Amino acid sequence: MRGQMMDFPLLIPSLLDHAAKFHADTEIVSRNTEGGIHRYTYADSAVRAKKVASALSKAGVKKHQRVATLAWNNYRHFELYYGVSGMGGVMHTINPRLHPTQAAWIINNAEDQILFFDTTFAPIVKAIAASCPTVKSWVAMTDKANTPKLEGVDVVCYEDFIADGDENFEWAEMDEKDAACLCYTSGTTGNPKGVLYSHRSLMLHTFGACLPDVFNLTARDVVLPVVPMFHVNAWSIPYIGAMVGVKLVFPGPGLDGASLVGLFEGEKVTMSAGVPTVWLGVLNELRKNGKAPEALKRMAVGGSAVPPSMVEAYEKEFGITLEHAWGMTEMSPLGTYYAPKEKHLSMSAEKQFALKLKQGRPPYGVQMKIVNESGNEQPWDDKATGDLYVRGPWIVERYYGKNETALSADGWFHTGDVAAIDADGYLRITDRSKDLIKSGGEWISSIEVENIAMSLPQIAMAAVIAAKHKKWDERPLLIVSLKPDQTIEKSAILAHFEGKLAKFEIPDDVIIVDALPLGATGKVQKMTLREEYGDYLLNK
Amino acid sequence: MRGQMMDFPLLIPSLLDHAAKFHADTEIVSRNTEGGIHRYTYADSAVRAKKVASALSKAGVKKHQRVATLAWNNYRHFELYYGVSGMGGVMHTINPRLHPTQAAWIINNAEDQILFFDTTFAPIVKAIAASCPTVKSWVAMTDKANTPKLEGVDVVCYEDFIADGDENFEWAEMDEKDAACLCYTSGTTGNPKGVLYSHRSLMLHTFGACLPDVFNLTARDVVLPVVPMFHVNAWSIPYIGAMVGVKLVFPGPGLDGASLVGLFEGEKVTMSAGVPTVWLGVLNELRKNGKAPEALKRMAVGGSAVPPSMVEAYEKEFGITLEHAWGMTEMSPLGTYYAPKEKHLSMSAEKQFALKLKQGRPPYGVQMKIVNESGNEQPWDDKATGDLYVRGPWIVERYYGKNETALSADGWFHTGDVAAIDADGYLRITDRSKDLIKSGGEWISSIEVENIAMSLPQIAMAAVIAAKHKKWDERPLLIVSLKPDQTIEKSAILAHFEGKLAKFEIPDDVIIVDALPLGATGKVQKMTLREEYGDYLLNK
Repeated sequence: MRGQMMDFPLLIPSLLDHAAKFHADTEIVSRNTEGGIHRYTYADSAVRAKKVASALSKAGVKKHQRVATLAWNNYRHFELYYGVSGMGGVMHTINPRLHPTQAAWIINNAEDQILFFDTTFAPIVKAIAASCPTVKSWVAMTDKANTPKLEGVDVVCYEDFIADGDENFEWAEMDEKDAACLCYTSGTTGNPKGVLYSHRSLMLHTFGACLPDVFNLTARDVVLPVVPMFHVNAWSIPYIGAMVGVKLVFPGPGLDGASLVGLFEGEKVTMSAGVPTVWLGVLNELRKNGKAPEALKRMAVGGSAVPPSMVEAYEKEFGITLEHAWGMTEMSPLGTYYAPKEKHLSMSAEKQFALKLKQGRPPYGVQMKIVNESGNEQPWDDKATGDLYVRGPWIVERYYGKNETALSADGWFHTGDVAAIDADGYLRITDRSKDLIKSGGEWISSIEVENIAMSLPQIAMAAVIAAKHKKWDERPLLIVSLKPDQTIEKSAILAHFEGKLAKFEIPDDVIIVDALPLGATGKVQKMTLREEYGDYLLNK
Repeated sequence: MRGQMMDFPLLIPSLLDHAAKFHADTEIVSRNTEGGIHRYTYADSAVRAKKVASALSKAGVKKHQRVATLAWNNYRHFELYYGVSGMGGVMHTINPRLHPTQAAWIINNAEDQILFFDTTFAPIVKAIAASCPTVKSWVAMTDKANTPKLEGVDVVCYEDFIADGDENFEWAEMDEKDAACLCYTSGTTGNPKGVLYSHRSLMLHTFGACLPDVFNLTARDVVLPVVPMFHVNAWSIPYIGAMVGVKLVFPGPGLDGASLVGLFEGEKVTMSAGVPTVWLGVLNELRKNGKAPEALKRMAVGGSAVPPSMVEAYEKEFGITLEHAWGMTEMSPLGTYYAPKEKHLSMSAEKQFALKLKQGRPPYGVQMKIVNESGNEQPWDDKATGDLYVRGPWIVERYYGKNETALSADGWFHTGDVAAIDADGYLRITDRSKDLIKSGGEWISSIEVENIAMSLPQIAMAAVIAAKHKKWDERPLLIVSLKPDQTIEKSAILAHFEGKLAKFEIPDDVIIVDALPLGATGKVQKMTLREEYGDYLLNK
């Protein structure tokens, strides 16, 4: 016997319909690629998103076909999010920091029909256009005056493209399990793999991310997503914004500390979200200014582990809480989020701080388990570690275009992270499986070593890799970059570990470099470091 | 093309699984029907809910069959919520304040298989058992010692019933559109009508109700639902609690001001939810004590309009915000909720107060429109009023056992309320359609008149009805009850309206009664008043 309630599928465009009706005059503010600030409202945005959807239909894009973007966070990208998914297409966001050959590979793999790009990325378009036969139009996300001319590419101006679109376009009739978005993981080995999100998975993820113990956003919030819209849908913030009526502030290409702090202050941003490297730049800027932006109270941070020193600096110097999140492209991305329980509120400041350094706990919808080498589930005692597996309605089942499942035989997704879980369900990532160091049969966590290195005031970034070793098989090797105008001796760095780690966990050596190699999403590329320095201890 | 994410149906028992894993030691506290306090945890509750599910299966209850309760808010009722829906049955909560013949009619209409009852309601069971042939067992929700003996009824003790249940019972395999709960509306005319909620509709409703601009509950909250679990699932609080890990406090039969305030203080309740009449009793108790419970910051209030004087009293005297909600059984029940937007925060205190008196705005998931007598949609200008229609994934499509839809030809549900909506989507219920007074062709809102009457300190409750009138067809007639030991002249009451209402809106007369008739859910029964006093002005 079925329930007898109305049948409403969970569809992405219904979010924008809601915002246009109930948050009509709430603003969406963008820093333009060409400079200057653009502002309009959810009502304006809904009109233009319908024009996008209509124009795509007129241009011959069929239901389920992929439409790509190479773009910053801005209002046109926002319109495309709703326009593409709303006309039944699949919104395929591409990371513009990828190497052009990799971008072209992805476009061909996805068989993208139209590609929208910010003018910053015109050089990529020029480099790949000839090798992307499925793309029928290359649309520059700008006005007529700023549309670039590219030799050999017929570039269309976005404003021209949508000009004939019908603002009364009816969203496509869709099944909630239809694909809505496609995002490739920046794989460290092999070709990138696409994750194909459904309307349903994104909507449930949005509900989960909205929970008061997760992003906790209201119609009184102003949110600036630094996390790119080309990276797992900016952690769903463009969807959350419309669901709850947040004022959105899109930073465009201005991701340096000064540009971000300028928007935080000018737009009275209350909450922001990004990766640790971004918050490092912002921290330096805040220190220069000597004050926190008035309204900014908290920042979600994910993508990689946050050094404790940064959490402490934001809190003590500027009264801003860094809220740790953990997830991955395959998880839409939300896995866990920092939120204390009632019992934590009466704990010592030290214990509360320790909780902030964990990755948080999952909202309803995400299930977790940790498993040891023999395949046995490990206890949740904050001590036992194991390979982390997850499952739930917004977690990948199989990759785009693949026939085989991405899951284990018992239906769980192997995250590749190694973790401990405490009795309250708080996750502590101890390492990526491949970043663990196995020294003479003992495991060493690279994250723990990196955090201690980062607590030295001279050090800007730190990475520990497993370097090959004649006696111990692998030994930790520390590679660091220093802050501007700072110096420190290697011996002083190594001395800093004494008493903080077991002797065997202290790195064998330190290499000071100008800058650590960062991947397309701002994470340190340990694979590159392993290639370069993996034999360093053998050759010494 | 479908998305390629994991397929997880939205099922009610998954909420308790989540709580048992991630909020294992969070407490559920209940006032027992027999007196005393019971406490245990979500982990304990999950074990017993599985025993309930298993015991129901063993007792021969089949998937989709209905299992009824006549019960207070307590932990056994909570176990039944999950146990019944989790074994594939339909949880049918019955309002014990109904007349026994009406309760029996509902039981027979639902074909309930087993009925669980709190011992308070043993007299109802005794009165109806013989006329409810589908009920195979009558289970007293208590221990052996307190299980009543009822002549002619074979009463089973709850603890005996679940004793052989398997705590490792596997929840039933279900489709998310399967029925999970059944709740009858306390119809004022005709037979009661059942609303049959699906797992999906309840889960989406729970996500909607959890939003930071709705109930806004976290794992740091302690929530006491005064709203009964027999009344639209206590506004979803038993589901929300498990979804976010709230400490739940169930008041059992103690719904008087002193009992509630005792629990508020003893359990450090942060949020509560109930109807205005309950908050009147609590307000009196707080005034007696001269202080607010330490942790209590806000109370959701719905079911009928809240007098402005009560909102003001709670806020000014005790620092507690009354948060207005509006909904109905057919809406699961959430329609709208009080939550200001960013732009409201800088408005005058007066305007902010006015916003609190409205019914709030809908979360994503609820759509609204107001329609005039000619069927035309009315503007959202806070002035134009019309019949309020709603639609969305947690709104009824047809009533239980009916073949015809409950919706209009264009697919909307007619709420029976008359309302205005402002440009920001805030709803203002001006009347129930049948409570409007039409005097000489002019409409008069009974709610407005009642609110003014209620602002007199002597008046406890007020109701305005349309009384028949020779000249004007209908005229407003005010019926009030006074607070203990208070007196006031009719002429003083009528004088109080002068300058506050148009002349034609002022009631023709006042009747002072000992008490107003309240329905099973605590609402004033205007139908009863109309029957008794409808001709009052004709006979004068």
